[in-house]
Amino acid sequence: MSPSLEYLNDVTTDLPVHPVATKAMGVPGIAAMQLDDADKHEVVLKYFRAFIADLCEQFKGGHPGSAMGMAAIGVALYKYVMKFSPKNGNYFNRDRFVLSNGHACLWQYLFMHLVGVKEMTVEQLKSYHSSRYDSLCPGHPEIENDGVEVTTGPLGQGVANAVGLALATKNLAATYNRDGHELVNNMTWVMIGDACLQEGVGLEAVSLAGHWKLNNLCIIYDNNSITCDGTADVANSEDMNAKMRATGFNVIDILDGHSNVSTIVHALLTARSSDKPTFINIRTVIGFGSQKAGQASTHGAALGPDDIVNLKKTFGLNPEEHYVLPVEVYNFFKDVPQRGHQLESDWKSKLTAYEKEYPDLAAEFKLRVAGKMPADWTKFIPKKEDFPKEPTATRKSAGLVGNPLSENLQNFLVGTADLTPSCSVAYSKKVDFQSPDLRTACELNGNYTGRYIHYGIREHAMCAITNGLSAFNKGTFLPITSSFFMFYLYAAPAVRMGALQGLHQIHIATHDSIGTGEDGPTHQPIALAAFYRALPNLLYIRPCDSEEVAGAFETAIKATETPTIISLSRQVLPQYPQSSREGTAKGAYVFVEEENFDLTLIGVGSEMVFAIQTKELLEQDYGIKARVVSFPCPRLFEQQSKEYKQSVLQPRAGKPTIVIEAYAANGWERYADASVSMRRFGKSLPSKTAYEYFGFQPKAIAPKIKDLVEEVKRDGIEILRGDFRDLNGVLGVGFEH
Amino acid sequence: MSPSLEYLNDVTTDLPVHPVATKAMGVPGIAAMQLDDADKHEVVLKYFRAFIADLCEQFKGGHPGSAMGMAAIGVALYKYVMKFSPKNGNYFNRDRFVLSNGHACLWQYLFMHLVGVKEMTVEQLKSYHSSRYDSLCPGHPEIENDGVEVTTGPLGQGVANAVGLALATKNLAATYNRDGHELVNNMTWVMIGDACLQEGVGLEAVSLAGHWKLNNLCIIYDNNSITCDGTADVANSEDMNAKMRATGFNVIDILDGHSNVSTIVHALLTARSSDKPTFINIRTVIGFGSQKAGQASTHGAALGPDDIVNLKKTFGLNPEEHYVLPVEVYNFFKDVPQRGHQLESDWKSKLTAYEKEYPDLAAEFKLRVAGKMPADWTKFIPKKEDFPKEPTATRKSAGLVGNPLSENLQNFLVGTADLTPSCSVAYSKKVDFQSPDLRTACELNGNYTGRYIHYGIREHAMCAITNGLSAFNKGTFLPITSSFFMFYLYAAPAVRMGALQGLHQIHIATHDSIGTGEDGPTHQPIALAAFYRALPNLLYIRPCDSEEVAGAFETAIKATETPTIISLSRQVLPQYPQSSREGTAKGAYVFVEEENFDLTLIGVGSEMVFAIQTKELLEQDYGIKARVVSFPCPRLFEQQSKEYKQSVLQPRAGKPTIVIEAYAANGWERYADASVSMRRFGKSLPSKTAYEYFGFQPKAIAPKIKDLVEEVKRDGIEILRGDFRDLNGVLGVGFEH
Repeated sequence: MSPSLEYLNDVTTDLPVHPVATKAMGVPGIAAMQLDDADKHEVVLKYFRAFIADLCEQFKGGHPGSAMGMAAIGVALYKYVMKFSPKNGNYFNRDRFVLSNGHACLWQYLFMHLVGVKEMTVEQLKSYHSSRYDSLCPGHPEIENDGVEVTTGPLGQGVANAVGLALATKNLAATYNRDGHELVNNMTWVMIGDACLQEGVGLEAVSLAGHWKLNNLCIIYDNNSITCDGTADVANSEDMNAKMRATGFNVIDILDGHSNVSTIVHALLTARSSDKPTFINIRTVIGFGSQKAGQASTHGAALGPDDIVNLKKTFGLNPEEHYVLPVEVYNFFKDVPQRGHQLESDWKSKLTAYEKEYPDLAAEFKLRVAGKMPADWTKFIPKKEDFPKEPTATRKSAGLVGNPLSENLQNFLVGTADLTPSCSVAYSKKVDFQSPDLRTACELNGNYTGRYIHYGIREHAMCAITNGLSAFNKGTFLPITSSFFMFYLYAAPAVRMGALQGLHQIHIATHDSIGTGEDGPTHQPIALAAFYRALPNLLYIRPCDSEEVAGAFETAIKATETPTIISLSRQVLPQYPQSSREGTAKGAYVFVEEENFDLTLIGVGSEMVFAIQTKELLEQDYGIKARVVSFPCPRLFEQQSKEYKQSVLQPRAGKPTIVIEAYAANGWERYADASVSMRRFGKSLPSKTAYEYFGFQPKAIAPKIKDLVEEVKRDGIEILRGDFRDLNGVLGVGFEH
Repeated sequence: MSPSLEYLNDVTTDLPVHPVATKAMGVPGIAAMQLDDADKHEVVLKYFRAFIADLCEQFKGGHPGSAMGMAAIGVALYKYVMKFSPKNGNYFNRDRFVLSNGHACLWQYLFMHLVGVKEMTVEQLKSYHSSRYDSLCPGHPEIENDGVEVTTGPLGQGVANAVGLALATKNLAATYNRDGHELVNNMTWVMIGDACLQEGVGLEAVSLAGHWKLNNLCIIYDNNSITCDGTADVANSEDMNAKMRATGFNVIDILDGHSNVSTIVHALLTARSSDKPTFINIRTVIGFGSQKAGQASTHGAALGPDDIVNLKKTFGLNPEEHYVLPVEVYNFFKDVPQRGHQLESDWKSKLTAYEKEYPDLAAEFKLRVAGKMPADWTKFIPKKEDFPKEPTATRKSAGLVGNPLSENLQNFLVGTADLTPSCSVAYSKKVDFQSPDLRTACELNGNYTGRYIHYGIREHAMCAITNGLSAFNKGTFLPITSSFFMFYLYAAPAVRMGALQGLHQIHIATHDSIGTGEDGPTHQPIALAAFYRALPNLLYIRPCDSEEVAGAFETAIKATETPTIISLSRQVLPQYPQSSREGTAKGAYVFVEEENFDLTLIGVGSEMVFAIQTKELLEQDYGIKARVVSFPCPRLFEQQSKEYKQSVLQPRAGKPTIVIEAYAANGWERYADASVSMRRFGKSLPSKTAYEYFGFQPKAIAPKIKDLVEEVKRDGIEILRGDFRDLNGVLGVGFEH
């Protein structure tokens, strides 16, 4: 076998062909291949494919097609190219691998088994699609399981996560590596199918990878030309290679990707030494070996017993036998754990040498490897008395609180979706994360050590890349994102994936509510908070002033396995003497107490000002006494004791509770009997006028509350049961503006 | 002036240079230009730019930069190229124009004024950023206002809408045009800034435009190289022209776009006769004329009085005068309304001639122009007795109900995000919407008359393109989209824009809730329903069986100014004897009545089965009597009378109400005291096991309800006030799996 000749025959590449893998690359590569390896590959591939088919047949479901089609790519990666340690999924400098086409997860599970990931037994493999609660083989890869870097499944997310993982490496390498001390130099490999670069989030992410020249990123495109609807060309006719070149990638094109392992190895090694990110376009055959090979029907359903018999016969296997992995297949991968062990111990030696020469840097680095914040981070958060006395937009408050943290804490990686002037996250002495080439070219203050990230107008990729940053090694980075709150709807699928994976992140969401003003209804969120308040494992905190912003940041930083959205105003808001960061951390607290109260008003974020003013007007005009509760975060409040909750809301007092918030009321019914809220979309008006237009002004609110209080006094609080009152506005069904 | 020479000097193009505009094109174009027109352009442009600067200065806000930079493009479009009628924004065969960079809306408003859109007075122009409730000049263009095709603002949406508008034209033209009778042949022009092709939704949409060869689409790229964060190259280094070529566009590159009107006219006319969609990359200068020209600071803030004085001096204008539009500027555009009038009357004549020759087609066409459904559409919906008796997945029911409608009604345009096998929307005898070239190439059953659309794995663009389809001429199309419900989170920004604009659409969202099973938590929506239930002007309907699916379709088709999501199960569900389409239309109705009841159970969609089973078990094991309410749509229920609501829920009876739904409970607190719901993310398990794992099984639910009923009997219903009970699961804060 002459791999190099074959290589030249069916491959076109933008890069110089990599001659042979060297010891220096730390992987066996082409050099380790023997003349008879092609035969071995054939054996491994046929057993691999039959095993996948058997697994899907067990419960008559799953995704066999791409897992079978991608088999040769897996052999190239797991046997020859990828630097990792099967016995230790957390080896720090491991190559990161992301299966962006997550439905092909059996492919990954089976390779994990073959290279010796301990927990991944045959019994576990058989738990795919079973009723076992403790399965390590869920329908898509999940981050909780050893050997899986990120949870994938929603298409396009994984490739964006991979950009984040590669960014993490670049930033750490630039920050900590020194001449002769390459502490961090791992590659990031990401498998994609046809979908991931149809999805917008994937396209946004690859634009950034090209811009940043992330040459440590390699996208491996399983180009089987088949999607659920049939041939991929029913919905796509692009010249994908040309598009990726225009996006800043080197492109390698492989025509036979279903059997020729050495070709694929060569291409992957070439990617490892590229000057740009690499896109390897590998033609494969979905369901290779099946009678339905090349057809969409092999994508998301088991092949059926007849087809499997045929497949095994074609491969020269015994159709009567199932789940067969002979010893020669195991033997083929036997060297992988040992190599992984060697990589680990080499890295430990490197770290020891580094510590001797750079003890301070090493201490910081080791803290980050351990995923820990410096012990004294709270000292960077201003005290209540440090805040300005004059009315201040909470987006500015977020700058006052967050920017000293960003400036001083090396694990903060601060980003914005092109809203630097609006979101106040640009900290003092910031250096941009940029390719050094770009810095020379346009004299920007940026390089790979930079911790301020311009994501462009790509909210979705920003948050999906951020998931990769957080997942690189939990705690090594605490990424911040920023945009208008409304545009966290664009990013919502990625924010959700952060919550699902328990990733530590802070999203700075400014211009919340109709108070954002003139930009109009397109920019005024009404329903979005209802989503984030319902989303598991996410904190949506809406502070009313600088002090509550401080509370929001403290809470967010301490919530190490939960992303937080801090929701902030464009417009100035009063600084309240009674606001409290401790109260904020509890989700809700008494803002103004009244002994003989007639009602409780709930004030939230920007709209606290109306609660306070309405309270005063009620007393002045009608002698009605209102307590006021500040309620920045229902999710945090839910975690408090029943006693605390009752002390804050006093539900047994038989008095009405009314929430004032310029969002849809959905969810507040848990705590309130009535609302001043939004039942339709907003309107383009200056902030103050917009509020007035929708009835958010004390002189409009107070008489309605007076009527409600009187009605309850007359007829009892029970009349409000099942009759939640929306005190302003009309129901937004049917088109009206 | 020699336009053609100049044209060749600073333009590169993939297309043959269009020689001169001809009368046949119906627009004046280059042929109408005189030798002294360049001077006239200079005059118009300077007054235009000064006027924009004055408008932003009035209230010290707004977006002057791009509106000024794009002035010459506007002159080319509005004076020379665009076919429209300023006096009648609804002229059917008008060119559609979309300002995808909606923040530059003043540019559009001022051109609308200059070409004689009646309502767009100078007084109205001055209402930009004012407190006037009746302003026609909101901060972003809004569809309600004459001359605006779609509401834009959230970046990337407009360019995707434009793809939908162009698709609409192609489909109508192929369906109704006959030799010698070109009833529909309008162009779609869309202006974009740097953002719209950074945003994923824009990138998804242009891929489809290229695939479909929508040669009636022209994207005009205002390439001023500036975004909020500074020079666009802080976040982008792509070769945009190469990328657009790879995507299937012809590209025209213009180096001077700030003054050379004739060059731009030439390029636009060339686009009009292109074989593919066209991308015109026009270099402009943001804030042209300002001292801050070319800087990000001109983007989103007024220029300031000093700068405006300077600008006017530079332009040779009097700095003391404001809002000056001299008669020569008006005269320049004077022919535009007359031309529009001529276009209208020509089109009416065409229609008359067509009617004579094709009376049946013409009748159908005129009905669609009037935005009306055929009167007898309800006959295509099966009766209750027509449905299968055996358990049926509601996604299958949606096929049973929807597909006869799709097959028979020409206004139905049915699409899928690559889930044809899963979403059951492929109707009998469907023809795909495809470029005829593609059909030849791969023998697909498709052409431009096709009404089945393969959007690829691009949920966001699917819904944004759908907005363009619905907005083309309200009622001409009733577009259907389809995907898994979870992926309507990807599409959410576009679905929201549909609701905001009052567009008629039906979204078929299958695989809802944890019942979707093995695909796991990434595919199991928990919080998404809370968003759509809170979103104004949207119906989220979750039917429990075929009959309720019929009710959902009927309701959705009648809601002509509201989009509807019909949320459907993957798994089979019982067919209930008591289910009712009339009840569904009311949002909620009594499913099982009990005279002396102890509690009310709310059943929703897939989880109705647990409500019914729990009711039976409660009676059998404890002698507890439960009423059951079916609650497919809270938004519809909110519209019912107080009496109806109380008859359904009986809140005054002092008995607890418990909702059973495998989503976050948020919002149900309005109607229920307790829930069996999801407080964390789902899990990869077979459907039935997934439900069991999270406590959705009657034998787990019944004892908890028994305890609650006893507690209420003992202590009174008032104990549940402010103490909503989540009967199963733990709160999903902090990472746990």
